[in-house]
Amino acid sequence: MRAVGTSSGTFLRCRRSKNPLHQGKNTQASLLFLFFSLPFPSPDMATKSSNTAKKKEVKKETKLGMTVKKDDNFGEWYSEVVVHSEMIEYYDISGCYILRPQAMSIWETLQKFFDPEIKKMGIENAYFPLFVTENVLQKEKDHIEGFAPEVAWVTKSGKSDLEVPIAIRPTSETVMYPYFAKWIRGHRDLPLKLNQWCNVVRWEFSNPTPFIRSREFLWQEGHTAFATKEEADQEVLEILELYRRVYEEYLAVPVIKGRKSELEKFAGGLYTTSVEAFIPHTGRGIQGATSHCLGQNFAKMFQINFEDDKGEKGMVWQNSWAYSSRTIGVMVMVHGDDKGLVLPPKVARVQVVVIPVPYKDADTTAIKAACESAVKELNTAGVRADLDTRENYSPGWKYSHWEMKGVPLRIEIGPRDLEKSQVRLVRRDTGAKVDVPMTELVEKVQEILMSIQENLFNTAKEKRDACIEKVHTWDEFMTALNNKKLIFAPWCDEKEVEEDVKARTKGDHGAAKTLCSPLDQPEITEGTVCFASGKPAKKWTYWGRSY
Amino acid sequence: MRAVGTSSGTFLRCRRSKNPLHQGKNTQASLLFLFFSLPFPSPDMATKSSNTAKKKEVKKETKLGMTVKKDDNFGEWYSEVVVHSEMIEYYDISGCYILRPQAMSIWETLQKFFDPEIKKMGIENAYFPLFVTENVLQKEKDHIEGFAPEVAWVTKSGKSDLEVPIAIRPTSETVMYPYFAKWIRGHRDLPLKLNQWCNVVRWEFSNPTPFIRSREFLWQEGHTAFATKEEADQEVLEILELYRRVYEEYLAVPVIKGRKSELEKFAGGLYTTSVEAFIPHTGRGIQGATSHCLGQNFAKMFQINFEDDKGEKGMVWQNSWAYSSRTIGVMVMVHGDDKGLVLPPKVARVQVVVIPVPYKDADTTAIKAACESAVKELNTAGVRADLDTRENYSPGWKYSHWEMKGVPLRIEIGPRDLEKSQVRLVRRDTGAKVDVPMTELVEKVQEILMSIQENLFNTAKEKRDACIEKVHTWDEFMTALNNKKLIFAPWCDEKEVEEDVKARTKGDHGAAKTLCSPLDQPEITEGTVCFASGKPAKKWTYWGRSY
Repeated sequence: MRAVGTSSGTFLRCRRSKNPLHQGKNTQASLLFLFFSLPFPSPDMATKSSNTAKKKEVKKETKLGMTVKKDDNFGEWYSEVVVHSEMIEYYDISGCYILRPQAMSIWETLQKFFDPEIKKMGIENAYFPLFVTENVLQKEKDHIEGFAPEVAWVTKSGKSDLEVPIAIRPTSETVMYPYFAKWIRGHRDLPLKLNQWCNVVRWEFSNPTPFIRSREFLWQEGHTAFATKEEADQEVLEILELYRRVYEEYLAVPVIKGRKSELEKFAGGLYTTSVEAFIPHTGRGIQGATSHCLGQNFAKMFQINFEDDKGEKGMVWQNSWAYSSRTIGVMVMVHGDDKGLVLPPKVARVQVVVIPVPYKDADTTAIKAACESAVKELNTAGVRADLDTRENYSPGWKYSHWEMKGVPLRIEIGPRDLEKSQVRLVRRDTGAKVDVPMTELVEKVQEILMSIQENLFNTAKEKRDACIEKVHTWDEFMTALNNKKLIFAPWCDEKEVEEDVKARTKGDHGAAKTLCSPLDQPEITEGTVCFASGKPAKKWTYWGRSY
Repeated sequence: MRAVGTSSGTFLRCRRSKNPLHQGKNTQASLLFLFFSLPFPSPDMATKSSNTAKKKEVKKETKLGMTVKKDDNFGEWYSEVVVHSEMIEYYDISGCYILRPQAMSIWETLQKFFDPEIKKMGIENAYFPLFVTENVLQKEKDHIEGFAPEVAWVTKSGKSDLEVPIAIRPTSETVMYPYFAKWIRGHRDLPLKLNQWCNVVRWEFSNPTPFIRSREFLWQEGHTAFATKEEADQEVLEILELYRRVYEEYLAVPVIKGRKSELEKFAGGLYTTSVEAFIPHTGRGIQGATSHCLGQNFAKMFQINFEDDKGEKGMVWQNSWAYSSRTIGVMVMVHGDDKGLVLPPKVARVQVVVIPVPYKDADTTAIKAACESAVKELNTAGVRADLDTRENYSPGWKYSHWEMKGVPLRIEIGPRDLEKSQVRLVRRDTGAKVDVPMTELVEKVQEILMSIQENLFNTAKEKRDACIEKVHTWDEFMTALNNKKLIFAPWCDEKEVEEDVKARTKGDHGAAKTLCSPLDQPEITEGTVCFASGKPAKKWTYWGRSY
């Protein structure tokens, strides 16, 4: 239990008032802005409070309110949500962001799921240096071409020039593989399966966006080597399934498992699989995480050979796979609303906030005791509950505050609740309110948290699915693209055709490209042709603009 | 259970042989080298084996043996231990090292202790950028003077020059504190307590040493701000106590809690406390971890002010504190021996290795089954046990292999053990062997692991304490220094005197300096004078050369 403020006191009355701020899901962002901009209590609130002496203690708070609606200006809305929910602070170097505890706790929750899962698969954690020499970085030609423009170079230490410039890892294939070559001698050294949790740097200049596109980000990168392609292929999919679970089970974000086109695959690899999410508000796909089979390209360049059990020379098959702090941004974009962040209970640092709602002359001591007891009971049952007993904020202010921070469930306890031995539960996702007997508190809370987790996923999936549009012709494609759809189209799977589509759709909003060809492929019926080239279609592929 | 090799087979007989390699603690490094350099089996071994057909299957292994003794050449011994135990791989950029799973698992174990402890103290994890602008970095004058020569600068991205060079954090005071100033407004925003697990870079040029002094290293850095000095002072000591526990309870390394001299304190801080370890073989002290009170110096420079509960302006009191991957190096140096690494059971990834020892014509299936059952039973009881059933290595080779890797306890199961329903336990720390009934396996193993943990600490403490030498005069000081002692001396606590001692002791082995003044101070008796200046002594202080 982490209590916010500890001493008891009298609170302003505002619960179940007619103030539109407290009517659940219809709260308007513009009103919220007004609310937070005005010295508290607002005129409306003041009429309901006779305790004017308390007014001056209530903190003037102008920075917390949402001023932009998700529908009106998505980009600004997003910046506002991540900052006001205290996930992100903008940093004085463009494209770098501070991940505050609210964000890091989510990162840690995902790590606590993913890390034991890969350990079960026999993958071990290691840590390789941040730096790589130019010489090694450039060993795989396609790979370096893919990353070269984004590489940050260290050229000086103190006041001295380094003898040779040293790159900061944009990813660690070239950092690690010379040592794979050293460590792998015989078939008994295989498979070699390593992972590291680290930061990487890609000095991108286009549209830096917190979590989504930043110059430094946190990720895990797995790097594995096998004796056979079959083993590598199998692991690619096992990891991809873990990525699906990160998104769907934890972040409640639906994703499509698929394979990337030749144009979009990892530079230097054999093939790339990914989980792809979709942001309905902007009509853009977003690559959620990637699991690459590198084939033997890197093995060739770095001479990662081994002697098999018959004494013959072989070359390893390699994979690399990663998910990053981008996951958190996708979650914010998908679930957030005009009140702020919406957190799936599984990743919420605070799952339940308990707020005392004492009317004037109520028995505040008894109410506070009931709140404390509720928090204690929930914590004991493993629910992450927190208590907000701060005296200098009204219950109404606290409702908005914790809604902004995305806390999944609010518990209000007032004098009437005390009388009836009940508490009021208010869901962050739907705004729905329900009174439950105190004796059933833990059970009901656990039930509702599960229901919120499910509902967030189902709602997001419905919204995503409603955006999917099957097209067969170029005209249909363009209409769907302009309508921000997630386009599903039969495609000839030719690189030149994708390049052509990109060229023809280039514009202010960025070109359309393939997102992925889902692993789960519909049948290609006789005579189905590519929407873009008119050639025989080879696969169904998702297309769209993307982050 | 992670089995190394799976199928059963016949093993060469070597247990309880007269081969000096298997006589426990008297094994000689030079012989080990010979052993590993020769095609296996060695002539000595061959006489004991009639199964010559197996010879060619046994792997020739030349790289694992220790070639240097700890007493003979400590530096080379250390390099050999960290590499051959597979903790470290040297990297192609000088001063950068690869932390292999054997090292990372220790880092993770320490993290799993420390992270929940600081969370209990209300400290939250965040992540701040790797980069800092020159402008901000230089805000605290003393601080930047302390770090400037070691700062790595990024000046290019891709082929373009950056507008201004950007520094890689050597530590994050200047990265974080501008945002502390932004986040802290009133007394209710205090205390602000953040921590991050990250990498930092200090481009040092002197004596790079794995773990101990590397250009990039892993650490946690805590940064906290309080309304009062009392709170800051208290936290400094609470954290220092956690650092003591990291060393003493986990790594079994005795440390001294103390306060740094003015000359040795953190650049820009008010005072520095540390835990200091000592390496008897080199007679050098080593700073284990530091907990700094920064006072208000940074608060002044970064204007971290707040309004107190009376509406008056105050300035925060700050701390920063860190321990790094250096911890692992200190552990290696203190416990390692001529056979390789010695791991305290609490941090050993594998605490017990089970090795089948089938004589010729023995019932290998039954032996293997007994081994598997032992591992299973131990794992179920929470003991990290592993099975080595590899057929291409002899039991003797395996003994040396796992000794090199520092595994605290070995279990041997042969036909005679099977007959007697017992197993043989062999301790890594003392080489002591004991046969225990299979029915008491778990209980005995847990008991012995605890005993090993304690014994490692006690032995290290005895050795350390035997090096402590109290001196009162300059002559005694110099004699003790030349004898690689941990010198304990009354001191006047004057900066100029420490500078003078450094100047007078400068030589091939580096100057002597203060290590710390222990928090637990002996009384300064009337008339006690400083060993160096002859002025009245103010405190007892540890002196010596250091890493």
